[in-house]
Amino acid sequence: MKFALIALALVALLVPAKADAVAEIASPGKVLAVQVRIDGEGKASYSVSRGGHTVIAPSALGFLLTDQPQLKRNFAFAGADTASHDDTWEQPWGEWRFIRNRYNELRIHLKEKIAPARRLDVVFRVYDDGVGFRYEFPEQVVLKNVHIAEEVTEFDVADPAEAWWEVGGDWNSYEQLYQHTRLDAVSQAHTPLTIKTDGGVYIAIHEAALVDYAGMWLKRIDGQRLRSVLSPSAQHAAKVVRTAPFTSPWRTLIIADSAAGLYMSHLELNLNEPNALGDVSWVRPYKYVGIWWAMHLTNWTWASGPHHGATTEHTKQYIDFAAANGFKEVLVEGWNYSWDDDWFANGHSLSYTQPYPDFDIKALAAYGKAKGVKIIGHHETFGKVDNYEAQLSGALDLLAGLGYDSIKTGYVADEGGLTVLGEDGKLSYEYHDGQALAVHHLKVVTEAAKRHIAVVDHEPIKDTGLRRTYPNWVSREGARGQEYNAWGNPPNPPNHESLLVFTRMLAGPFDFTPGVLSLTGKGGQKIQNTVAHQLADYIVIYSPVQMAADLPENYVKYPGPFQFIKDVPTDWSETRVLSGEPGEFAVMARKDRNSNNWYLGAVGDNTKRRVAVKLDFLDNKHHWVAETYLDAKDADWDSNPHAINIARRAVTPGETLTLNLARGGGAAIRFVAK
Amino acid sequence: MKFALIALALVALLVPAKADAVAEIASPGKVLAVQVRIDGEGKASYSVSRGGHTVIAPSALGFLLTDQPQLKRNFAFAGADTASHDDTWEQPWGEWRFIRNRYNELRIHLKEKIAPARRLDVVFRVYDDGVGFRYEFPEQVVLKNVHIAEEVTEFDVADPAEAWWEVGGDWNSYEQLYQHTRLDAVSQAHTPLTIKTDGGVYIAIHEAALVDYAGMWLKRIDGQRLRSVLSPSAQHAAKVVRTAPFTSPWRTLIIADSAAGLYMSHLELNLNEPNALGDVSWVRPYKYVGIWWAMHLTNWTWASGPHHGATTEHTKQYIDFAAANGFKEVLVEGWNYSWDDDWFANGHSLSYTQPYPDFDIKALAAYGKAKGVKIIGHHETFGKVDNYEAQLSGALDLLAGLGYDSIKTGYVADEGGLTVLGEDGKLSYEYHDGQALAVHHLKVVTEAAKRHIAVVDHEPIKDTGLRRTYPNWVSREGARGQEYNAWGNPPNPPNHESLLVFTRMLAGPFDFTPGVLSLTGKGGQKIQNTVAHQLADYIVIYSPVQMAADLPENYVKYPGPFQFIKDVPTDWSETRVLSGEPGEFAVMARKDRNSNNWYLGAVGDNTKRRVAVKLDFLDNKHHWVAETYLDAKDADWDSNPHAINIARRAVTPGETLTLNLARGGGAAIRFVAK
Repeated sequence: MKFALIALALVALLVPAKADAVAEIASPGKVLAVQVRIDGEGKASYSVSRGGHTVIAPSALGFLLTDQPQLKRNFAFAGADTASHDDTWEQPWGEWRFIRNRYNELRIHLKEKIAPARRLDVVFRVYDDGVGFRYEFPEQVVLKNVHIAEEVTEFDVADPAEAWWEVGGDWNSYEQLYQHTRLDAVSQAHTPLTIKTDGGVYIAIHEAALVDYAGMWLKRIDGQRLRSVLSPSAQHAAKVVRTAPFTSPWRTLIIADSAAGLYMSHLELNLNEPNALGDVSWVRPYKYVGIWWAMHLTNWTWASGPHHGATTEHTKQYIDFAAANGFKEVLVEGWNYSWDDDWFANGHSLSYTQPYPDFDIKALAAYGKAKGVKIIGHHETFGKVDNYEAQLSGALDLLAGLGYDSIKTGYVADEGGLTVLGEDGKLSYEYHDGQALAVHHLKVVTEAAKRHIAVVDHEPIKDTGLRRTYPNWVSREGARGQEYNAWGNPPNPPNHESLLVFTRMLAGPFDFTPGVLSLTGKGGQKIQNTVAHQLADYIVIYSPVQMAADLPENYVKYPGPFQFIKDVPTDWSETRVLSGEPGEFAVMARKDRNSNNWYLGAVGDNTKRRVAVKLDFLDNKHHWVAETYLDAKDADWDSNPHAINIARRAVTPGETLTLNLARGGGAAIRFVAK
Repeated sequence: MKFALIALALVALLVPAKADAVAEIASPGKVLAVQVRIDGEGKASYSVSRGGHTVIAPSALGFLLTDQPQLKRNFAFAGADTASHDDTWEQPWGEWRFIRNRYNELRIHLKEKIAPARRLDVVFRVYDDGVGFRYEFPEQVVLKNVHIAEEVTEFDVADPAEAWWEVGGDWNSYEQLYQHTRLDAVSQAHTPLTIKTDGGVYIAIHEAALVDYAGMWLKRIDGQRLRSVLSPSAQHAAKVVRTAPFTSPWRTLIIADSAAGLYMSHLELNLNEPNALGDVSWVRPYKYVGIWWAMHLTNWTWASGPHHGATTEHTKQYIDFAAANGFKEVLVEGWNYSWDDDWFANGHSLSYTQPYPDFDIKALAAYGKAKGVKIIGHHETFGKVDNYEAQLSGALDLLAGLGYDSIKTGYVADEGGLTVLGEDGKLSYEYHDGQALAVHHLKVVTEAAKRHIAVVDHEPIKDTGLRRTYPNWVSREGARGQEYNAWGNPPNPPNHESLLVFTRMLAGPFDFTPGVLSLTGKGGQKIQNTVAHQLADYIVIYSPVQMAADLPENYVKYPGPFQFIKDVPTDWSETRVLSGEPGEFAVMARKDRNSNNWYLGAVGDNTKRRVAVKLDFLDNKHHWVAETYLDAKDADWDSNPHAINIARRAVTPGETLTLNLARGGGAAIRFVAK
């Protein structure tokens, strides 16, 4: 059944619904429907209904161009095509092994009624749990070189709603605290933007397959009407410069009855193209440790000197620790010339091939190989994309030659501060998610793929599901990770993960770097979690590569909870969100891809919570032993964060567990199939 | 005293206020104070306090550039200069004859601590009723060609507040209905943005002297923190391209105890440069009628054909009517080839010198001259700026040769739809308020000035007080005018003018085209005003050129109220806002520049209101006769809009009048000095 494609008979509806509706299409299970209209001025719009109730009111479609009249007026309906699709495909790694892709498709052909009679297609794919639509610019003489000044796609949410969102387009790297407000108090948001109507319908607006195009922010115009704002270009007046034919990314709306339903949708992955890399058995999920947290604590330094972290000796210690505890990789940051001056100013002199003299790169590769441990190559750019691209081939060749199979890239820079070399030979200062960076990231990913290297990027462009097409793009940052618990002011709040699950995590894997069992940041700052919460992060914050972020000596200090970190896999055949609400709590169960075992994680917020968990995800074919890592009765992130009850007992699939989550608490359970 | 400049001794304070405050300056009356800080990262900010209470919390300063690192970090304080200024200057025409300009100035020199050590100055002018500040880019080798990707000036309003605002940057020509929300529900606003804190402090954020720069929108980031967003360029990746040395426009904050106080500020005009045109006695305030409302009613057409409005015969009738009733000019729209096809598509074939054959331009100029009436040249561009600029000299020469002294320009086009010819010979599609349009408008104004022609522009760039420097830029549109009462869906609401007074009108004159005594739009649509309200508009909506917009036959039908329109002047020596609240009511008194007479206008909203007006603006040297045009007892915009009491009686300066405003009502009074 792998990559099987079942062509079904055309079942889509195509009827004039209202006076000005030109086409309508329902989802396969008739849950959702999309209507397309063209008004008297020739402006096209779409709307989305669920069970006959309007979810997205008629919302504008179209573009402003820098060198031609806008493409949003004077359109005539020039026909439509429909299609249906149903297949099930297999992920080489992921949260689910098999993913069903079942939708009805409606392609609208628009053509200007006046000269130059330009054409534009809009393609809708309607699933029972969401809608994706994109623009397709056909090849045509009158619009060959397309210079997009702005995309004016709107999302007019029909019913009064609340929203969980992050300010978009003005801040560094998607690393702000999420806000929870009424939808009509959103200013400009990054995607995914998570919405809940007062009637209980959950909506997530995002995009899929962001390829050679600018990232989309969502600006509220008025009321609950949002409009796309493309991330700017510093090379061109146009935010997107393309040659037709081409397509925009998919604009996606997941629509569900519950927050869990948002997470359970496969819309994002399904709207991306299939694996373009062929055999990707070399992409391996793993757990890793690294020379990293010690720098965030300021015990060690990225720069050279007496406290340099990335030394040969330290790295050997970490390799030893990894080998002894079953970790496959070791991240080493600060290994290369030169982190010694002001990072923002110094980025252009960074070398990706010249190690510091106290880091014996060849000896360490050999040392690791002997112990079955690889080193994760680290490529911090400080946003100097031009400098990185100039060295990219050599940098990757070096790592591949050493037997490395993973890189962690970094783009620490202010918004509007990433330098890219334009075709005109001039440097431009770009945003993290403009077209130039979308192009850059795929360049790194594809160059790395040629060398069988997987990529994890920090301060990345947002995830739009491209791991389906490029399965070596395994994880990324793109939200506040654990490092904010070292030095954040404030650190991550107790409900950070329960927020992330229903916002950032709808995009894809997050290299959150969990597992700080010491629960202590820089200068003794308290992490606002219990130990059980740190363990639960391995389940609720998905990544195929998961760090055990704490110092090795802390794992030695806390062997009990460390066992869970050693046991937990990072590749799954099945995932279920059992319950949750954004920013309140989240309970997830996942089945190990390589055994019959299940794992459960629960995280809460800054209150005590009791959560009932039915174990009906366990099968009846096995006997089940639960290894439970639960907040002790008096656990509390502030007063007693290390209080954890670790136990083991038989459980049955019919059983309902009651989890008592402490303030900042969590629960982690391993269900072993016997 | 004309243009006298009194140099005062330096009185400004320059003290380190807090640990990180590098400079502070108070207003001359010590009402307002500005503090400037530089934080540990070298980021500069300013704050504003009033009577020691923070009004604007520390707010960011700086720029993103397309081709250099951002100018907002790593700054060191490199010194400051202070100055004081006090003079009184005379307006050639206006709302006030004499304007005092009294401020303390603080110039902050910023210099980067790291290479390339770029310099940037910020200059603050602090008045008792407001603050203006601008950036000055000094001449320097390392930043000669400045490419501004974004200006990141912030305005963080300290106290909880409400706001009256219009969505900025996405819509046509500033012609939306104003919104009234909490400040933290603003999305992106045009300026002026009017704010009232819960503590009763009124703030208006705007800009002054928008010259060769992009217009500023205000985007809310979070909470009550607003950030500048410059209007885009379709020619350049940079929104502003300039060569140093140059200055930004002034960013302005009027701060007052009352809505009236906002209006009474002269900050905008004072921050503009003095008259650059020399003798401008040829710029004459006037009233006019025009071939205009009949087209909005669709009785006549702009296009040729059997219902063509701009015919020789119609124009003669309008000239006759103007001459008979004391109007100095007649606007004629639709006189030129060719309005016959789709306006948006057809703009490039418009001629500004070729009249329709049924419009005898020479004969009409002679006919008018004989009757003492001039014709207002009409230059609708449909946003085809390139086509207009190519014909500009010839078009103006034609009008000047005919003895015309006014043009009304028009820029009907969608945002992002104005075509400008770039230096590279390519057309770009620009916003109404980008740098290209700022340059264009001043080109028209200065070319017109050479020919002693005044300019009124519709669908304009916003007003930033440039009439001080270019007194032939007499008026403009830039908000919903009377035409929306013809065909608007909805038409202007009853409180439209009381909103405009404290929002749009803070920018400058508005060619609102009042005086539709028929109170009827297209197809019989009701105008939501009483007759007295339409008369009051001549006082509360300032313009040195005011239209009597209705059809001549309607003025014949309503001779009573028409008398006020014939009497009311359009040039003032004195203006006072007696009372008002945004969107509720506004009462203004103005003194005729050419007599001792005063005029009063009051407008309300959709409720009945009683407003007390103390007549203490009248002097004791004269006897006063009030000619009152008041809503009758049963007047109501919906049920009885024409009910007006017109009376005449003696009044005394000690008196307090009680005005009873109907729903949608108003009051207009002429105080004749005997």
